Formats: sequence, structure tokens, C-alpha cells
Amino acid sequence: MSVKTPTIKLSTTNDEMPLVGMGMWKVPNEVCANTVYQAIKAGVRMFDSSSDYGNEKESGEGLRRALAEGLVKREELFIVSKLWNTYKQPEQVEIQIRRQLQDWQTDYFDLYLIHFPIALKYVDPAVSYPPGWFTAEGKIELDRAPLHKTWAAMEKLVSLKLAKNIGVCNFGGQLLADLMTYAEIPPAVCQIESHAYLRQTDLVELCEAYGIRVMAFSTFGPASWLEIGVPSATQVDSLFTHPAITKIADAHHVTPGQVLLRWFTQRNIIVIPKTVKPERMVENLKSSTFNLTEEDIEAINGLDKGFRMGNTKVFDPRLAIYA
Amino acid sequence: MSVKTPTIKLSTTNDEMPLVGMGMWKVPNEVCANTVYQAIKAGVRMFDSSSDYGNEKESGEGLRRALAEGLVKREELFIVSKLWNTYKQPEQVEIQIRRQLQDWQTDYFDLYLIHFPIALKYVDPAVSYPPGWFTAEGKIELDRAPLHKTWAAMEKLVSLKLAKNIGVCNFGGQLLADLMTYAEIPPAVCQIESHAYLRQTDLVELCEAYGIRVMAFSTFGPASWLEIGVPSATQVDSLFTHPAITKIADAHHVTPGQVLLRWFTQRNIIVIPKTVKPERMVENLKSSTFNLTEEDIEAINGLDKGFRMGNTKVFDPRLAIYA
Repeated sequence: MSVKTPTIKLSTTNDEMPLVGMGMWKVPNEVCANTVYQAIKAGVRMFDSSSDYGNEKESGEGLRRALAEGLVKREELFIVSKLWNTYKQPEQVEIQIRRQLQDWQTDYFDLYLIHFPIALKYVDPAVSYPPGWFTAEGKIELDRAPLHKTWAAMEKLVSLKLAKNIGVCNFGGQLLADLMTYAEIPPAVCQIESHAYLRQTDLVELCEAYGIRVMAFSTFGPASWLEIGVPSATQVDSLFTHPAITKIADAHHVTPGQVLLRWFTQRNIIVIPKTVKPERMVENLKSSTFNLTEEDIEAINGLDKGFRMGNTKVFDPRLAIYA
Repeated sequence: MSVKTPTIKLSTTNDEMPLVGMGMWKVPNEVCANTVYQAIKAGVRMFDSSSDYGNEKESGEGLRRALAEGLVKREELFIVSKLWNTYKQPEQVEIQIRRQLQDWQTDYFDLYLIHFPIALKYVDPAVSYPPGWFTAEGKIELDRAPLHKTWAAMEKLVSLKLAKNIGVCNFGGQLLADLMTYAEIPPAVCQIESHAYLRQTDLVELCEAYGIRVMAFSTFGPASWLEIGVPSATQVDSLFTHPAITKIADAHHVTPGQVLLRWFTQRNIIVIPKTVKPERMVENLKSSTFNLTEEDIEAINGLDKGFRMGNTKVFDPRLAIYA
């Protein structure tokens, strides 16, 4: 028995994108194929991936198995992936998406995003893949790949039918406003860190005004950063046990996680919780089957303290992209 | 008797720019010519102007009078002005700087900045000058003028010798990083709101890493916003009477204003306090004649609360450029 989640329409194509999907960041390689397979079985129809997560090959295996068994058809799925920082030169963009599509064993992504507004020097995949942030010498090496040229190459992916929709991640208001001045195809989606401690109201309102859908990562707050040892994650209370959240969860007979997700989806913000547990996948998918009250939403809004956990400035002062 | 202030070197040209200048925003038209004249007499050598301030013609009169009387030579002055949002289409940039140079009665600006990372629809100067933010119907009308095209037109001003240096205002980390990928002439300066309640450490460090000089406006905090009735300015205490500041001022036998300015210039950040009073001009210029201690600086740093007063999002959600 699988659970259906609501969808929202994307600009330009009018494609329907599920509001609740599954994040592939930090899904361990050894369980990744089975996680994708189990997720599809549980009803997950949207996956959020990136070459940088280092598990696209395994994801592709899980996808192939699910399709081979007839659990679902490709067109019923919505697969999102991202262009990494080292492939920002226009001539690399098509080469790179084809590499990722091959890993996923599919012909197209439903949505392909620029992972960061940062261009790093090209690294030959034969030498290192995924290449991450640092050179072999442990340095950040910036590349002069302007976003307007990268975006034109992203648009070409649409005409090549390699990506149905295109968008961005970790872009702020200034850069989105500039992108809107030259985009022939406007970004369908902007993916940003957002949780009860980081609402990003202004950025969400800017996206809405431009018709850009917002996709939130780290929707559970510190939870996803604790496991990779980001120090800031220890500076705030867990949202799963926060009294403001558990009180609302109890009132609706749902879990704190479902409350945290519904706070987004009720505002048409897309979420991509990560889990490897099938029962948790179902729980996440079911998070749209109840409605928070206005008071619930206000109470969660009240937790905002502009607290960001993912910040590339720790790598290099030139990467202070949120300043 | 005039007071000399220290200067800093700008990238590309190695031009020396005074660390303490005078801001022309909100200098009333009726006193503006005399203010510029008196400022030059008092020793002010750098002026920060913009067409949007609506007083460039009067500034030019004051300048002409000072030059005619031989108080100073043009090459001893450093005049900064800015390109307004409605002139972002490449073909407008040269026309507009020539209009502003004519008002100033001079042949070149020492530094010409993009005023905001926002492009508004062109308004014919015969109809409205300066045109401000809104159309006659009270609307914000965006224009599709990409920054990379505007910047190329800014670079052309340098080869035309209409601007010795070029830079930006109100740019954040993402947009500066993108600009650095395509600029043939990197921005010499980035002008931003900064005061003890809004340090902008990450942005300052990013600028330093890129060799971009930082120029701070609203260095006295709420003071300059109270007079134009910005509500947020009433939400914080005056910095002039803040005990942390007055204590330091007393210890050094200087004024609170001098402490607030020195906190910037000691870190090589350029300041542009506005005043129409000659004795205050001298006070501002003399702010670099003493040094704050490490403890003083730390105490002022401790006042930071990320509190911004100027925010274009109040005009339109698409102008949430600081999100």
C-alpha cells in the first residue's frame, strides 16, 4: 500500500512536482540501492540527488530494480539532481548531466539544479569523482565561470530533453533577481536551507513573487548536521523534542517530524527528508494528511532565529555566499 | 587650517582614496553648494554622491567655487558618484555618467559605483530626474538589465576616462563572487550599510579576500534613518549616547562620533559621515588622529546584532536583495 502526496505545478512546463520527496544526501552507499527501491515501494515518487552525494550509481541500481519489477513507471517518478561546482564552464554542463544520467540509468532528470553559486576549477572525473570542495593540496580553487554562461548551458539541457526543468540551490535574493534579468527559462525551483530556526521569510516571498518554487533542505533543523559533526548544530535544541513542536504533534496525533514537514508543505514548500527506514518514509509521506492550525503555524514561526547551519564560508572567506 | 586624513590604495589603479569623506545623501539643496564649499575649506577631500540624492548640480556649484578660489585642485579631490537603477541598460550608462559629470562641472569621477543590484525600467530624465524608485503610478517596474552587461558598460567608462575607478554598492557575497568571475576590471570598492549594530564581518572578510575595499554607510547607526522616519531606526538605542561608546570616547578625550568612525578606519574601512556643520566636518576628519585599543574594538564589536535599517524589500518583495 503506497501513500500519495500532493504536488505543485512548476513554472514554464506546468509539470507537477511532489511536495514530499526523499533526500539522498548522506544515504550510505552500501544501503543506497535498497533505500531507493524501498522508498519507491513505500510510495516515494520524488528523489533529491547530486553527484556530490557520491551515491548516484547506487541510486540508479535501486531505480532500475524498481522499474524492472514494474513497481512504478519512470514517468511517475520525479528525479532531481544537481550540477556540481567544478562543472560550471558551459562546455562541461552537458557532459556532466550525461554522466549523472548514466549513473541513474535514466534518460532525463525531471529537475536539474545548480548546486551552489560557486564555481570551482574543473577536476577531471578520471582523477576524482565526486571531486568535493578541495584540491589534492587541500585548497579552494575558484574558477571564472560566470553564472549567466552556466545558466545558458542549463537552458540548453532543456532543449536537449536531458532536464525537464532547471533551477538553483543556495541562491539568495540578489542573485535570483539578477538571474531573472537574463534567464530565457526562469528557474523553476530554488532549494535553500530552511527549518523552524531559519524561516527565510524574505527569500520565500521573493521566490513566490517571481514564480519560483521553494524547496527546503535541513527541514528538521540540527538533526541532519549533527551526524556530520557541524559544530553549530549543537548550539540549538533538537526540534524533534522541542516542547513547541511536541505539543502540536500530540494535539494532532502525529509525530514531531510530521509537524515539521507539514509546516512547509502547507505553505507549498517542497521538502526532502532523508531516511533509510521504510516506516519513516511512510511517516514522511503521510505528513500531508492533516492540517496545522493558524496558531500552530504561528507557534512554529516564533522559533525562528535566523540560525543557519550550512555555510561554505568555513572553507574560505571568498565563499561567504550568505553575507 | 585643514586636517589631513589617511588614505588607502585601490586595486587596479593604485589610486589613493581618503578613508574619511563626506556623504551627500540628505544634504538639503538650499545649503548643498555652501556645504561642499565649506567642506573643502575644512579639509574634506572625498565626497560620496549619487544622482538619487538630487543635489549634484548644487554640489557642482560648491566645487566650482572652491576650485575658482584656488582652495584645492581637482586632482586633490576624490569624488564618488553612483549609477541609479533606471540606467542599467548598457547604452544608458555613459549617457548617465556624462549627465552627472555635467552637474558636478567636472570631467571625471574618481570612483563610480552601481548604486543597487536592482534594475528598474528606464525613465526619461526630461520626465523625471532623479526618478527614484516608483513609476508615476506608484509601482516598482523591474527592467531586464543583467549585471554582467551593466558592468561591461561600467568598464568602458574607465577606458573613456570618465571614471578612474569603478565599484558597487549594496552587493552581497554571492553577487560579488559572480561579478569576480566575469569582471575585466574588478570592483575597487563595495559600499554597504555597516555600523556597530551591523558589523557584516563575513562580507568584509570576503571583500578583503578579493581585494575589494569596503566603504560603510550609516556608520552612526540609527541616526541617519531617524530623520527620514524609517521605523526600524527607533527600535535600537542611539549609538551617540550608548554607554559602551561614551565610555571609550571619554577615555580617549574624543567624541562618540569619532569613536564610531575610528572603529571603521582603523580596519581600513572607508567612511562617509554626513554633516552640514563645518565644526562637525573637522571633528570627523580628526577621527583618525587617535587609536582604539583592542579592548575598545572588542567592546564595540560586542554591540553587533545583525540589525539592518536600509532594506529595499519594503518597496516590493522582489527587492529582498539582502535575503
